[in-house]
Amino acid sequence: MLQSFFEPKSIAIIGASKKPGKIGYEILKNIIEGGYVGKIFPVNPKENEILSLRCYHNIKEIKDHVDLAIIAIPATAIPSVLEDCGVKGIKNVIIISAGFSEVGNIELENRVKKIAQRHGIRIVGPNCAGIINTWYNLFASFEVRCKRGGISLISQSGAFGGAFITRANYENVGISKFVSYGNAIDINESHLIRYMADDKTTKVIGIYLESTKDGREFISAAKLASKKKPVVVLKAGRTMSGKRATVSHTGSLAGDDKIYDAAFRQAGVIRVFDFDDFIDTLYILETGMLPSNDNIFIVTNSGGPGVLAVDECEYIGLKVPESSYELKEKLSFLPPICSIKNPIDLVADANYSRYYDTLKVLAESNEVGGVIVICVPPIFIDPMDIAKAIVDVKAIFDEKKKPMIACFMSGDVVAESIKFLKENKIPVFQTPERAARAMQKLVLRKKIIERLQSS
Amino acid sequence: MLQSFFEPKSIAIIGASKKPGKIGYEILKNIIEGGYVGKIFPVNPKENEILSLRCYHNIKEIKDHVDLAIIAIPATAIPSVLEDCGVKGIKNVIIISAGFSEVGNIELENRVKKIAQRHGIRIVGPNCAGIINTWYNLFASFEVRCKRGGISLISQSGAFGGAFITRANYENVGISKFVSYGNAIDINESHLIRYMADDKTTKVIGIYLESTKDGREFISAAKLASKKKPVVVLKAGRTMSGKRATVSHTGSLAGDDKIYDAAFRQAGVIRVFDFDDFIDTLYILETGMLPSNDNIFIVTNSGGPGVLAVDECEYIGLKVPESSYELKEKLSFLPPICSIKNPIDLVADANYSRYYDTLKVLAESNEVGGVIVICVPPIFIDPMDIAKAIVDVKAIFDEKKKPMIACFMSGDVVAESIKFLKENKIPVFQTPERAARAMQKLVLRKKIIERLQSS
Repeated sequence: MLQSFFEPKSIAIIGASKKPGKIGYEILKNIIEGGYVGKIFPVNPKENEILSLRCYHNIKEIKDHVDLAIIAIPATAIPSVLEDCGVKGIKNVIIISAGFSEVGNIELENRVKKIAQRHGIRIVGPNCAGIINTWYNLFASFEVRCKRGGISLISQSGAFGGAFITRANYENVGISKFVSYGNAIDINESHLIRYMADDKTTKVIGIYLESTKDGREFISAAKLASKKKPVVVLKAGRTMSGKRATVSHTGSLAGDDKIYDAAFRQAGVIRVFDFDDFIDTLYILETGMLPSNDNIFIVTNSGGPGVLAVDECEYIGLKVPESSYELKEKLSFLPPICSIKNPIDLVADANYSRYYDTLKVLAESNEVGGVIVICVPPIFIDPMDIAKAIVDVKAIFDEKKKPMIACFMSGDVVAESIKFLKENKIPVFQTPERAARAMQKLVLRKKIIERLQSS
Repeated sequence: MLQSFFEPKSIAIIGASKKPGKIGYEILKNIIEGGYVGKIFPVNPKENEILSLRCYHNIKEIKDHVDLAIIAIPATAIPSVLEDCGVKGIKNVIIISAGFSEVGNIELENRVKKIAQRHGIRIVGPNCAGIINTWYNLFASFEVRCKRGGISLISQSGAFGGAFITRANYENVGISKFVSYGNAIDINESHLIRYMADDKTTKVIGIYLESTKDGREFISAAKLASKKKPVVVLKAGRTMSGKRATVSHTGSLAGDDKIYDAAFRQAGVIRVFDFDDFIDTLYILETGMLPSNDNIFIVTNSGGPGVLAVDECEYIGLKVPESSYELKEKLSFLPPICSIKNPIDLVADANYSRYYDTLKVLAESNEVGGVIVICVPPIFIDPMDIAKAIVDVKAIFDEKKKPMIACFMSGDVVAESIKFLKENKIPVFQTPERAARAMQKLVLRKKIIERLQSS
């Protein structure tokens, strides 16, 4: 049902503009430069041509069928334009414009809603940032463009979405789809979750949520989706002051946080509380990795960061058991200065082969559910050697269906290694704690799958 | 007493080497290239010259007085060399070499200890990464060099210190002093805390701790220091598995975490639990800013991130009160679409003057204790304009002794603005939650000062 929003064959941009910086200019430019292959119809009564495309004075002038209309004109002018869309037979509309219920203009919002219903128009928005589908080269948004990947973001807040996309670019994380749904006068988070659940290029669904009007439907949609792929929610308005803030923002009251918390749990949703954790969680879950059991092993070349990783793992509920006698036997090739208890401390002079050989033993051991591998490069070891050992041993981890998460600390010194690891599909974090929290999400996801499958 | 460690007039490097990658080469190179102005005496029986300096075959060959000796030779060779140091009258020694109690070699460690005591030699280490004093151009460590600043780091783990320094470089954060004290057979964390407490270029003290042998002395030293400047501790080994890991690392048992927690509280130490939070906390406390009261106000141009900031503030115990009637009156110049409740949402088209005017009102209001100012730049606003407004209004915040913390989200899009803000001494974070946690540390520090002064 939502396919024409994400894969439209033709788009009209109502309010297209010649002025850089104007929303109606930036969206049109994004659509053209993003490589969209369908027909594009700029609409503006004052222009005959924008960005080398014929500009229509109104929607009725367009002879072709229009699959999707994007409206970026002042709110008060929208009802009559929407009527025209209805008459023309346009069934899918994104209203970017603000100035509705979020500023108290409920009457105007209701008028728009009724016109849409009368004509059978489906609406995303108003007060939203648009839609992106990287796999269809569709950048129907004024946000910066992003690279392809498996994360789909459903965001009640447009600015949050923008901040997320630029951060994803910064961290070289890819996006599948992005929807900012704003005031949700028609299409809401639950519709979008259902759509993403069946979308093939969406590997993980992220939701920035301030409120939902239909909790039952949200649980139902989220539970359905969770059975197929991970669903991660960052819920804003969890405190009293936060609730007050949501009213000023999207005009919605956030409601009791405990009820949301229970709903998320019931639906198998993974809840996070922090922007960093949100993006880290989506990043790790996109890999599709699952631990083979709950026992996490830490491999490190530096004691302190190893202890921090162990601490954080245990604090957040992961098991960091001491190596069994059998495992210690298998690791007995390590120099006596190394600790083989867990964390397995390869000490500062650990090179390619010490890392590779140790990781291979862990990948092949049944008592190991997942591995966090830490590197704080000493001056006399090239961190790229350690990165190569990790990349080379990955096939064994994949074969044994066991996650390996890297933590390369040291800023610029390891920048090249981090790039190399990411290119080779090794998830990598810059602190032991963030690596541990990422591993926890994999364990959590595994438990959710088991629970949902048995229910 | 420790001055010769941090401001030595002459240094001998025992175990100096010609081979890049060797500890004895890297330390010597760091000292020379770091711009150390005192005398440098490489010592190695096999070399006559290293890095264009005369190399002595043993310590006794050196005719001049040696203020500080740095030893980087195999552990077993250390007792006889230390004897020579004692005979030569060297009073300060850093033993870099590992291979002592941390690998069970307690007997060797005790021998070294006794030799030092007999000659009145003070020792940092063994099993450590050395000392840095950026204000004296002293880089007596194999860690990468760092820029000058106000953060002094005392680290039981050398690798942790290395990871911290490279991360600080990456984030453009400056260091005053760095000591990795390793096995602490003589000089321990408490001695170092007392030294840093009186050190003029140290604005804030950070400690990575796995264990302390004398809790009473630690509390006493930390309390003394806390009265003068903030003391922040990242204590590893807080969980059962973490404790086990510390034994393998520095050979010390971490002990009961609750006792540490109580000791930290008693001493006025700010405890953190995460590498990111550790560096963020040191960074914000180095500014010396203190809130004038507990009421935090959020200024934003984007609703979602504003709500996240409010949520995190309240969750961690900050007050985010609704603006008073008087304050609302003073903000009535804002367009009606803006929310003036707190968060104060200037909405997406907020430019230089809207930010400046709003921030000025908050700086001058008695009901405002501190401000977090958020920017998620929309396409049609140059984030540098907003950064300039923040920089221009800073003088009023300084005059009113009120902290302002910036949160510029959006990765590369705001990289230039973040640089500009940092150059102008505006602390800036990339997520609302990290900005909120930084503000909390200022509130906490203020309460600690009040409590310590009244006790």
